Amino acid sequence: MSKDKLSTEPYKGVRDFYPEDQFLQDYIFEHMSRACELFGYEAYNASLLEPTDLYRSKTSDEIINEQSYTFTDRGKREVTLRPEMTPSLARMIAGKSREIPMPARWYSIGNFFRYERPQKGRVREFWQLNADIIGSSSIEADAEVIALAHNIMRSFGADERNFEIRVSDRRLLEAAYEAAGVAAEDRAVTTRLLDRRAKMEDFDTKLAAELGENRASALVSYLDRTTSTAYLEQLHTILKARGVGNMIVDTKITRGFDYYTGMVFEVFDASGQNARSLFGGGRYDNLLTLFGHDPIPAVGFGMGDVTMRDFLETHNLMPDYVPTSELMLCVVDESAMSHAQKLAQDLRREDVAVAVNLSAKKLGDQIRQADKMKIPYIIAVGEKERDSGQYTVKNLSTGHELTTTADRISEHLFSSLG
Amino acid sequence: MSKDKLSTEPYKGVRDFYPEDQFLQDYIFEHMSRACELFGYEAYNASLLEPTDLYRSKTSDEIINEQSYTFTDRGKREVTLRPEMTPSLARMIAGKSREIPMPARWYSIGNFFRYERPQKGRVREFWQLNADIIGSSSIEADAEVIALAHNIMRSFGADERNFEIRVSDRRLLEAAYEAAGVAAEDRAVTTRLLDRRAKMEDFDTKLAAELGENRASALVSYLDRTTSTAYLEQLHTILKARGVGNMIVDTKITRGFDYYTGMVFEVFDASGQNARSLFGGGRYDNLLTLFGHDPIPAVGFGMGDVTMRDFLETHNLMPDYVPTSELMLCVVDESAMSHAQKLAQDLRREDVAVAVNLSAKKLGDQIRQADKMKIPYIIAVGEKERDSGQYTVKNLSTGHELTTTADRISEHLFSSLG
Repeated sequence: MSKDKLSTEPYKGVRDFYPEDQFLQDYIFEHMSRACELFGYEAYNASLLEPTDLYRSKTSDEIINEQSYTFTDRGKREVTLRPEMTPSLARMIAGKSREIPMPARWYSIGNFFRYERPQKGRVREFWQLNADIIGSSSIEADAEVIALAHNIMRSFGADERNFEIRVSDRRLLEAAYEAAGVAAEDRAVTTRLLDRRAKMEDFDTKLAAELGENRASALVSYLDRTTSTAYLEQLHTILKARGVGNMIVDTKITRGFDYYTGMVFEVFDASGQNARSLFGGGRYDNLLTLFGHDPIPAVGFGMGDVTMRDFLETHNLMPDYVPTSELMLCVVDESAMSHAQKLAQDLRREDVAVAVNLSAKKLGDQIRQADKMKIPYIIAVGEKERDSGQYTVKNLSTGHELTTTADRISEHLFSSLG
Repeated sequence: MSKDKLSTEPYKGVRDFYPEDQFLQDYIFEHMSRACELFGYEAYNASLLEPTDLYRSKTSDEIINEQSYTFTDRGKREVTLRPEMTPSLARMIAGKSREIPMPARWYSIGNFFRYERPQKGRVREFWQLNADIIGSSSIEADAEVIALAHNIMRSFGADERNFEIRVSDRRLLEAAYEAAGVAAEDRAVTTRLLDRRAKMEDFDTKLAAELGENRASALVSYLDRTTSTAYLEQLHTILKARGVGNMIVDTKITRGFDYYTGMVFEVFDASGQNARSLFGGGRYDNLLTLFGHDPIPAVGFGMGDVTMRDFLETHNLMPDYVPTSELMLCVVDESAMSHAQKLAQDLRREDVAVAVNLSAKKLGDQIRQADKMKIPYIIAVGEKERDSGQYTVKNLSTGHELTTTADRISEHLFSSLG
C-alpha cells in the first residue's frame, strides 16, 4: 500500500448510504411523498446552493453565523449550502406568485447542510421533507399541515401513543412580550432562548441577563399562567374531528426560526427515548415581504430523516431490508450465458427484477451470493435448461422448487411474492 | 418596496424546479430507477460534500482546478461539492469491499456541481444517474451497462433510430500511444485533447504543440487506421443478441476522465440537434488502488438530466404534466368544510389523492382553480351534499357528471382514470 493512499472515510459528520441504508432512506421518503400526494401536494425543488443573503435576515443568527456552509465562488459570489428549505420556497413563490394558483400545496424532499458538532440526532448533512400551504390564512390550513404530519407518522406504523403533537402560537408569545415590556429588538433573541428552555440549565440566569430580572420574571410568569387560547382550543377541536387525537396545547413551544408569526408546533417521541423534538413547523405570514412582495400567508413543516430513523428504531418500526432483485439467474456454464441473458430480458419485460450472476463461479457459490444478498428466488441456467426449455425456480428461504416453462415464471413469482 | 429587497432569482447557473419542472424530473428519475431495478441494481448514495483529495488525482485537472466548487470548512478541512459520482462510489466500495457480495450492481441518482459558464446543455448544478457493476471484468458486464443504458432510452419512448451508442476501448488508445511513442506522462492530457477533438477547430495544432509534429501525426494516423478490434466486434455481437441494434464501433471515442482502462462509450442524439454526447461511461479497473486497495474491476455510466431533457424535447417525448391531485373538493359554504375534510380523509384511505379547496372563494372560482391546476375531477361539497349523502363527480375536461354515494366515488374515479 502506498503511503499517500486516500482515506475511505466520508467527510466528517456526513453519511454514506450503502444499499441497506439507502433502502431505509427510500422507505422513509416514499411514505412521506405518498402521504403528501394523497393530500394533493405537488413536488418542487430548488438548488442546494443559494445566495447567502437569502438567509441573512430571517433564518436565525446562530445558523447563519456559526452553522452555515458559506463560501465565495470563483465569480466572487457569496453562496450558502441551504440549511433549511423555507427561504428557497418563499423566493420561488415570490418570483412567480401571479402564475401560481393559490392556495398552493407544495412539498419537497432534499438534503441540507449545517456545520454542527456531530452527535446523536445531529449530522452535517441531513435530508428533510418540507410541506407547505401557501396563500391561506385559514385555521383549516394550520390544521391540515398538522394532520398531514400525523398521517405520515401513522403511515410508518406509529400509534398515537408513540408521539405527541405540541402546539402553541407566536401571537401568544407576542402578547407576553407586550405584557412584560420586552422591547421589539430583544424579542428574536428571547424567542430563541425560550426555544431552548427545556434543554438549558441556566435558562433563568440567561434570560435575566438579556431582559433584566423584572422583565424576565414577568415574562416567565405570564407564559406559565397562559395555558391556552381560543384559537388553540379551536384548532384542537378541528384536529379531533379529523382523527388527530394526540395534539396537545403547550405554550412552551416557540420554535427557533425568526419568521414564524402564528401557530407553531413540534412533534415529540412519547417514549422519552428521544428528548429533542422529532420535527416541527408553523405559520409564517410575512416572509415574502423580504422580496418586496405583498405578504402571502403560509404554513408548513420540515421533517428530517435523522430523527425519524431514531424514532422508527425506538419503536421497532424499521422495515426489513428487501433487495431490488426478485430473482437471480445463476449461470451454470459460460455457454449458457447468452441464453440466461435472453431469459432475463424476457422476464424484465414482464416486470420481474432479475440479476444475472456474472461471477463465473461454481453454482453453489452463486447461490450463496444470492442468499447473502437476500434475493428470494434463483434459477440455475445451464445447457440442460437451455435445451429443454424447463426451468426450476427455487425459493431460497423455504427451499421450495417448481419446474416450469419460461412464460410461466413471472406468474409463479408474483403469486408467491404477493 | 424597500430598496434592499432580496432577489427572487436563484444562484447563477442553477435551476428552480416549480411543480411542472419537478414533474418532468421525477418522470426522468422514475424511468431511470425502474430500468436499473429490473436489472437488479441496488440504490446507494453518498454525501454531496467530499474531501477535495478524493478528486485530485483521477477526475481530470480541468474539472478540479477550474470547474470545482472547493472551499475550506470552519474546521479547516478542504472540501468539494462532488462534480461526479465515481470517486465516491470507489471510496465506498474500498471501505467495505469484504462485506459486499461481488459482482455488485449499484445505482444512484443525485445532484452534482461544476463551475462552468452556463450555456445550452450545461448548468452548474445537474442531476445524474450513475449505474455500475463492481467486481466483474467480464465483457458481459461491459455489454450489460450498455444494454441498461439502451433500455432506459427505450423506456422514454426513444426509437433506436433516435440515438446511437458509440463504443471504443482505452486499450486501443494505449496501443496507439505505444506505437506513436507518446510518453506516459503526456497521455492523460493527450486523451483529453482527443476527447474534445470533434469540438475543436485547432485540434491538429494543439496536438502537435503537445507531442511534436511527428508523434502527433503518427498518433492520428494510427487512430484513423484502426477502425475496430476483436474485443469491440465481440461486444457488438453480444449486444446484438441482447436486442441492442444501434451500437457502433467508433475509435474516436475516448472520454475525458483519467480513470478509464477499457471499454468507453458515448451515446449521441441521432437527430444531429444535440451535437455533444448525451451521456457515456466505461470501464475503470484500477480506481480502488487509490485507497491502497487491490484493484477491483468496474464498469458503469453516468446519465444526466439536462441533456436528457433536451433529447426528450427534440424527439417529442416529453410527458404531459399530470398534477398530484386526482380530485379537488370545492367547498360551497364554510359550514360544509368539516364534512368535506372528512370525505377527503375517507377517500385518501381508498388511495385517492384529494385536495380540499381552502380558498373560501365562490364555487366558480374554485372550479377555475382546479381547472388551472389540471386536476381532472371535482366535487362541490355544500350543505346539500352533506345532508343527502349524494355527491356529483364532475370530469372537468369532458364535462361528464355522475352522482353517487361516498363509498362509490373512488371506484368511479379509478375506472375513469384507468
